[in-house]
Amino acid sequence: MSITINNIKNFLINIEKTCDYETLYNIKGWVRTVRSSSNTMSFCNINDGSTLNGLQVVIQESNYPDIDKFNKTVKTGCYIEINGRFKKSPAKGQMFELIMYDFSIIGDVDDTYPFSKSRMKLDTLRNYIHLRSRTNVFGSIFRIRSALTKAIHDFYHEKGFLHLDPNIITINECEGGAGVFQLTEKDITNEGTITYKDGKYNWETDHFNRAPYLTVSSQLHLEALACGMGNVYTMNKSFRSEHSNSTKHVSEFTHLEIEMVNNTFDELMDISVEMIKYSIHYIFKHCDPDVCNLDKFISKGLMSRLYEIINMDFKKIKYSDVIDMINSDIEDKKCKVSKLAYGDDLGSEHENYITTKIGCGVFVTHWPMKLKSFYMKQCDDGTCESFDLLMPYGIGELIGASQREENYDKLINIMNDKNINSDDMEFYLDLRRYGTCPHGGFGLGFDRLLMMVTGIQNIKDVIPFPVYYKNCKY
Amino acid sequence: MSITINNIKNFLINIEKTCDYETLYNIKGWVRTVRSSSNTMSFCNINDGSTLNGLQVVIQESNYPDIDKFNKTVKTGCYIEINGRFKKSPAKGQMFELIMYDFSIIGDVDDTYPFSKSRMKLDTLRNYIHLRSRTNVFGSIFRIRSALTKAIHDFYHEKGFLHLDPNIITINECEGGAGVFQLTEKDITNEGTITYKDGKYNWETDHFNRAPYLTVSSQLHLEALACGMGNVYTMNKSFRSEHSNSTKHVSEFTHLEIEMVNNTFDELMDISVEMIKYSIHYIFKHCDPDVCNLDKFISKGLMSRLYEIINMDFKKIKYSDVIDMINSDIEDKKCKVSKLAYGDDLGSEHENYITTKIGCGVFVTHWPMKLKSFYMKQCDDGTCESFDLLMPYGIGELIGASQREENYDKLINIMNDKNINSDDMEFYLDLRRYGTCPHGGFGLGFDRLLMMVTGIQNIKDVIPFPVYYKNCKY
Repeated sequence: MSITINNIKNFLINIEKTCDYETLYNIKGWVRTVRSSSNTMSFCNINDGSTLNGLQVVIQESNYPDIDKFNKTVKTGCYIEINGRFKKSPAKGQMFELIMYDFSIIGDVDDTYPFSKSRMKLDTLRNYIHLRSRTNVFGSIFRIRSALTKAIHDFYHEKGFLHLDPNIITINECEGGAGVFQLTEKDITNEGTITYKDGKYNWETDHFNRAPYLTVSSQLHLEALACGMGNVYTMNKSFRSEHSNSTKHVSEFTHLEIEMVNNTFDELMDISVEMIKYSIHYIFKHCDPDVCNLDKFISKGLMSRLYEIINMDFKKIKYSDVIDMINSDIEDKKCKVSKLAYGDDLGSEHENYITTKIGCGVFVTHWPMKLKSFYMKQCDDGTCESFDLLMPYGIGELIGASQREENYDKLINIMNDKNINSDDMEFYLDLRRYGTCPHGGFGLGFDRLLMMVTGIQNIKDVIPFPVYYKNCKY
Repeated sequence: MSITINNIKNFLINIEKTCDYETLYNIKGWVRTVRSSSNTMSFCNINDGSTLNGLQVVIQESNYPDIDKFNKTVKTGCYIEINGRFKKSPAKGQMFELIMYDFSIIGDVDDTYPFSKSRMKLDTLRNYIHLRSRTNVFGSIFRIRSALTKAIHDFYHEKGFLHLDPNIITINECEGGAGVFQLTEKDITNEGTITYKDGKYNWETDHFNRAPYLTVSSQLHLEALACGMGNVYTMNKSFRSEHSNSTKHVSEFTHLEIEMVNNTFDELMDISVEMIKYSIHYIFKHCDPDVCNLDKFISKGLMSRLYEIINMDFKKIKYSDVIDMINSDIEDKKCKVSKLAYGDDLGSEHENYITTKIGCGVFVTHWPMKLKSFYMKQCDDGTCESFDLLMPYGIGELIGASQREENYDKLINIMNDKNINSDDMEFYLDLRRYGTCPHGGFGLGFDRLLMMVTGIQNIKDVIPFPVYYKNCKY
């Protein structure tokens, strides 16, 4: 397989002792910068995406007489092939440079190439989604994204979880049908393509004989797999058609969901912390230059925030205690957030206040059943065994979790109370009819975890091709 | 974290030398079988999904006087908690058994529980998708599925590929719009929900202002990422709305797609072989009992077929030579498949004939451009640098691949010839406008690879929740 600039660099570091700089190498990459320092010398940085800093190429008249040709033809964005020999670099920040003996341009660019030498803003780059991975910042983000995905897989496999992805196309609207996408095999663009009978679409003329949706969560299906296979997880995509264009919402996101069997509520919190710390360790080990790059240019203090999380004690506080604490602090004029009654949901001002005050990740546990989903395990006092994990530094909610109600009667009652249509839920009820068992799990927006690890503020900048409200361009 | 039966077994094997059988263990699992052998002795097999054979529990009157209570209440399907001590088993096929001192039923079953002791057919079990992971055969299939996924991730990360998943919701119909699902945020069930203007749906009243589809392939987007980051892969789901209900087609499938940069056509074939062999080695290492189980009960000879693939030399043959070979064999009365003219596609009878005759995996290369997609790299003789990988044992096509046409003018011309709408393809053309580079990749139906590794004949049985024509029930 052809070698990358990263391979070469690692190789050169290893052979350093033997000082074999005689070999002629053929290296390819995209030109990131090019400048001539004098009539007899030019510099060019090329990168193939395998590493942050790419490779410094030195063009000297002594080795390549027609330096003028190089200066006139090689532009930022070209895909270029260089023949040259390595030598130790006298410049700071790089161990080696490539002395050019010959070159050829494989892929040229014209004047319309949108990227120049100068650093562009993230929201400007969002206009060039298909090209932005050619910049240093997106190189870093996407290398970290790939590594973070691998960290998650390694973590759960080491723990003995099975990776199983349920269906994305589903008839199950999970929590009531708001904010879901519907699917059809027809092209509804043209009037009359779909046929109505007594005002209802005849779904039997469509692909599945009934209305299919894109999943908003794989949890219910994952529970079915867990209640047979034991601990499982998925990294399916999930979909929400919410009309929101915030920096934290997209219509399609990567959804890490786990489901544990025969576990305790505390174990669910413990494994959340362990996973977060494992992921950051993994990123430090595999993407250190990229984290430094983002710390330097995008998110000052990123590195030290991540170190703090690794060493953090996470706290567990009951919802009711959170309410009391906030209200008492308001009374004592310690904070200016709006007052809360028992049963109110927390706003982001409250979340921020709590994590800032406590100074660490906070599990807010035992929420009132009225605020939470039907499937959560009910306690005797009207709360449920659920938690939201809130993270400091403005990150906010990262994980939502609960033990699941395994008692058939309690589940049926709450479904009635909450007007959950049980027609398509027989499979879910079967799990309680037949050999029911204690289990619980959580959902985590993988893209939000990546935002935390990269310090990127807009979710659209951590996803290769983000799809969001009023915006699907690829 | 609570320990699984698999953990316990590994633990016991390790402590065997010290013979500590005094510890009282608490083990939970679903009852797979239960039988009383006499008035004073019963046996029960419990499993929590972590291992194929579960745990043999021995109930003796001497240790648990009320054996009658056990026999009357414990049924297949119960989720049960057993307190007991381990001892070396006198029985064949198991090292240990658990001597029961006490038990309690956590999750009972009633007479409607569909699984009995006796082995059920795969197509019968397909009526109980949500429960079938409680059987030995689906336990094996899904453990192998999870391991195979991990094998793929490990393989590509070791090779330095980045894992990046493009968007599933796309405006790009890739190859012409047949067989795609369309999306809307409206509920089209009720007539009048969507508004037409001059016979056209006003897509500006919908989520994305235009018609979105479910992706059929992430390739084009993956090319954009490769032309910036270098070698990349995805394991996105892809979707096809074909009206097919064969044993090899589903509407939603896991699609492994890779894209390499600065590679040769031969390297694309080499990495395919390497990946397949790596995957099988991985499965042997991690799922040996499960492969044996499937070999014994589902697919006789599976184990030896997989060994053959590991040791197989894969052959490369040009499409034109395949045509000549088949026609000449027909003339010599060596085979009875239908005759082929140059330019005809191969049918499955031809695929089977080729792989059976040659006796190994066959890369059929250099297909006529007319049979293949617009993006494939054109050769001077009207063919393209493409291959289909055909596998023996009736497995058939496993991989479709090509180098990509990196020349802007050639690409535009073939797009015109093939009537590809270039309106939404500007991003793809940009990759050839700006620093174009040699690259290529392939697509592999992960579920089909899993069929090969498990010997399962119906794709619906290797997917946790299969979704297919006229069938979306979860």
